[in-house]
Amino acid sequence: MNATAGPARNLPDVSQLVVGVLGGTGDQGRGLALRLAKAGQRVVIGSRSAERAETCAAELGLGIRGADNAACAAGSDVVIVAVPWDGHAETLTALRAELAGKIVVDCVNPLGFDKQGAYPLQVPEGSAAQQAAALLPDSTVTAAFHHLSAVLLQDESVERIDTDVMVLGEDRAATEVVQALASRIPGMRGIFAGRLRNAHQVESLVANLISVNRRYKAHAGLRITDV
Amino acid sequence: MNATAGPARNLPDVSQLVVGVLGGTGDQGRGLALRLAKAGQRVVIGSRSAERAETCAAELGLGIRGADNAACAAGSDVVIVAVPWDGHAETLTALRAELAGKIVVDCVNPLGFDKQGAYPLQVPEGSAAQQAAALLPDSTVTAAFHHLSAVLLQDESVERIDTDVMVLGEDRAATEVVQALASRIPGMRGIFAGRLRNAHQVESLVANLISVNRRYKAHAGLRITDV
Repeated sequence: MNATAGPARNLPDVSQLVVGVLGGTGDQGRGLALRLAKAGQRVVIGSRSAERAETCAAELGLGIRGADNAACAAGSDVVIVAVPWDGHAETLTALRAELAGKIVVDCVNPLGFDKQGAYPLQVPEGSAAQQAAALLPDSTVTAAFHHLSAVLLQDESVERIDTDVMVLGEDRAATEVVQALASRIPGMRGIFAGRLRNAHQVESLVANLISVNRRYKAHAGLRITDV
Repeated sequence: MNATAGPARNLPDVSQLVVGVLGGTGDQGRGLALRLAKAGQRVVIGSRSAERAETCAAELGLGIRGADNAACAAGSDVVIVAVPWDGHAETLTALRAELAGKIVVDCVNPLGFDKQGAYPLQVPEGSAAQQAAALLPDSTVTAAFHHLSAVLLQDESVERIDTDVMVLGEDRAATEVVQALASRIPGMRGIFAGRLRNAHQVESLVANLISVNRRYKAHAGLRITDV
């Protein structure tokens, strides 16, 4: 549970990397931007509208900057994709050039909702992360940050978020960068949890966490034990 | 983390129920039988061969009995399905009459393996649990006990297994019985985690835990935080 021990040992120093958050004005993106900036990371929020991104960044403070999605992607070393599933393919297709050579971190959960609650959507590529990998052949795509409560992320009175971050990907150097980023946030550890072909269930598990939250009035997270 | 507080509060008394374990001579079934019997539950191991089941039961001790699958099912109140995925549909189809009126707990993870590790198999019904529900219209089907390490379950030097058990199902009374059973095992809590349509990702997540175990030389489990 200590960021300098266990799975965080020997992870790279990521303190100088600029992290972009596409969809950074949404709840999840905004929460992630806030937590990473509080941990000392340089963060750029991206949005379709540069003005909305700049307003959001100014509200959050902590040196966070705002830009349109293209400038956000071009100006960052690591780019978190936190856009709604609806706009996922379209957004990434438009940013292929700006995202070339970058580490892309997909945290999108393709879910549907009906009166019985949430359920996973079928994605032709297998998962949002695999769709990103298919659309961005010149980027190194990883998947992470799926199971974080946007409520807790955005609540500045919460100092520590008691959860692990499952990090998936094919490229070990890239997954270790993402693990290191996650491990900078108090309470979190970035844990390698497999290849992208195993991303679907990680994304879909959010439907189960929504059921947990409803039953127990909680903001559930996941801790991996024995690691 | 205390079985008398939090999510275990107000769960039914299951101490008098007989629990059958189909496929109880396999690693997962054997480990579950052992843990439940140690917790004071009456347990019957089922196998295709009554003799093999009886031998396994005698080895485990703790009052565990052995029987062929049909007698195991007929003589139990709650029946855990821990058979290999390969024999899942066939076994359940043959036991439809014996399982009528019972709570069935599916813990089967349909996985394939290749040189890159484990990956989820596609199941026409959506998941092993949904297949069980389709094949057993007169039973109350739930899903649980997917993420437990068979190694830890069977290691008698391990007193406490630090993990939660996600319990899925449509019937609240049945899922609460299964939660109560899980919560009897030291270190475990049974947590309601959604309907059967959300079982696929819970079953498939075992592929990710296998990746975690390989990377960290661990026997990973999952704890749900904030519950």
